[in-house]
Amino acid sequence: MSLDSPSVTMDDVLAARARIGDKIRRTPVLTSSTLDAMAGARLFLKCENFQRAGVFKARGAFNAVFSLDDAEAARGVVTSSSGNHAAAVSLAARTRGIRATIAMPKIALASKIAAVRRYGGEIVWVEGKGAVPTSEEYDATVARIERETGAATIHPYNDRRTIAGQATCALELLEDQPDLDVVLAPVGGGGLLAGTAVVVKAAGARIKVVGCEPQMADDAQQSLRAGHIVPQLAPRTIADGLRTSLGDITFPLIQRGVDDIVTVTEEGILHAMRLVWEVLKIVIEPSGAVPLAALLERRVPVDGRRVGLIVSGGNADLDHLPWIK
Amino acid sequence: MSLDSPSVTMDDVLAARARIGDKIRRTPVLTSSTLDAMAGARLFLKCENFQRAGVFKARGAFNAVFSLDDAEAARGVVTSSSGNHAAAVSLAARTRGIRATIAMPKIALASKIAAVRRYGGEIVWVEGKGAVPTSEEYDATVARIERETGAATIHPYNDRRTIAGQATCALELLEDQPDLDVVLAPVGGGGLLAGTAVVVKAAGARIKVVGCEPQMADDAQQSLRAGHIVPQLAPRTIADGLRTSLGDITFPLIQRGVDDIVTVTEEGILHAMRLVWEVLKIVIEPSGAVPLAALLERRVPVDGRRVGLIVSGGNADLDHLPWIK
Repeated sequence: MSLDSPSVTMDDVLAARARIGDKIRRTPVLTSSTLDAMAGARLFLKCENFQRAGVFKARGAFNAVFSLDDAEAARGVVTSSSGNHAAAVSLAARTRGIRATIAMPKIALASKIAAVRRYGGEIVWVEGKGAVPTSEEYDATVARIERETGAATIHPYNDRRTIAGQATCALELLEDQPDLDVVLAPVGGGGLLAGTAVVVKAAGARIKVVGCEPQMADDAQQSLRAGHIVPQLAPRTIADGLRTSLGDITFPLIQRGVDDIVTVTEEGILHAMRLVWEVLKIVIEPSGAVPLAALLERRVPVDGRRVGLIVSGGNADLDHLPWIK
Repeated sequence: MSLDSPSVTMDDVLAARARIGDKIRRTPVLTSSTLDAMAGARLFLKCENFQRAGVFKARGAFNAVFSLDDAEAARGVVTSSSGNHAAAVSLAARTRGIRATIAMPKIALASKIAAVRRYGGEIVWVEGKGAVPTSEEYDATVARIERETGAATIHPYNDRRTIAGQATCALELLEDQPDLDVVLAPVGGGGLLAGTAVVVKAAGARIKVVGCEPQMADDAQQSLRAGHIVPQLAPRTIADGLRTSLGDITFPLIQRGVDDIVTVTEEGILHAMRLVWEVLKIVIEPSGAVPLAALLERRVPVDGRRVGLIVSGGNADLDHLPWIK
């Protein structure tokens, strides 16, 4: 655990909530006796699939965009993302009435490109040597746009404003269900998990925080065990939101406040995702099913406990359901 | 319009609510600025996909099952259905601790058969001359079970208890949104539409009630125009909940309280269904998408009005999505 003072505090989270509370949705917490019986615990699913832009990332994007002063905002914002963060930043910028430029790979899903355009984001294609651009190629494109336009960069996770905004999700969950024993969140770049840890540990050290990630992208578990960031190389998981590596802001917060990181199989993700669609009648994306998969694969000891799960988003590709061959 | 006194009144509906209110779910009413913009009206979607057993039919089944006196209940209940009503009656009977026998065709979807079994219903296969049993063959099977066991028959729609229970859906909708201009409900056998008409017209004659059905199963529209029940022959619509004909109890209630019945295309149903999944992130079945399809196909004049839509259920076949070829 880091002994330095944390880079994101409850004060930051409360400020974020005051800033974005009327711009994002307070999402519902759903329960299901069927899922409880299967997991052997009492589950509380915080449904960020109902969040604006269909994903928790709206919280971080709105907080970052509305943190800018007027002069900064006038120059617009820029980010790189092939997915949910791109749409969330576009929506937040449009809401503030400023320009958003999104560096995207040409191989991004058509549905993700359409979402950015629907929210008014301007797309700049990242040119790479391979089919999938490297982080360096993304960063070079963002830096060029920043240089040319003066736009402010909003990192998808390794950014204090993003983390504080994303942390408002756990804040709402604990307000609705104060007596949880453990909170599970998916972990990709670590913004959601870091923010969750800040909030949960401020509420009570006895509440456990567990990060959940695919076995096929287990860099966060490796990083926590090694004590330094282990980068994610060539992840092949279906959970497309969880393929990124941790950042130097998210990792220390995770070291400080997360009790454990567990991994799940690809089959487990598919099964949990389909189960939520079938039982709860809600559309969630693969990444959002990872915490439930961790429970159903018995990766977290929760016998009879009260468990909060952050269902991170609902932007599934409806034309290619992963369980239909 | 019939001048006789109606067979189902608001008193029946209020009694039904008192009987089943703690046994069914009060489902949410969702809104969406995206859908509002597409429909050119303000929409309020009453989401019965979140109802127990995934469908509004739980309301009628619970009301009928809990209307029985103890001696009747001890002999169990029987019904015939290839779908949602079968599961709903099984669940209601299990909740009361009594036996439910369901006459089903062997060609029923595996998911529907599994739902009946999950809720403890006992299946009796209806033997027919063709692959799809006729109504007469269904009725003969139900009559035989009734004779052999003394079980009480619960008709899926042509039953005052079923209609009164299903009407509690509109009651909740109007409590949450009293100032609607029009309420749209799908129509198959007519139980939901008849019950909706009873409630809405009791709340105010100025609120319009419009039934919505597939062009491929337009018997209710034909019946309303002809002034007598026109049976549905060989319906081929994807909206599997709306293939039945009206009954002699539902039809007079529909004549009395429904302002119009409109039809939609199969493409329109598919489009509306997929749109709800994508925009609202909820799983609904084809029948539940029919009212929205009617708005998007401009079959109901709603310009700028406040429109309630009953989204009847969420039991879609997740392994065969109709928009995936």
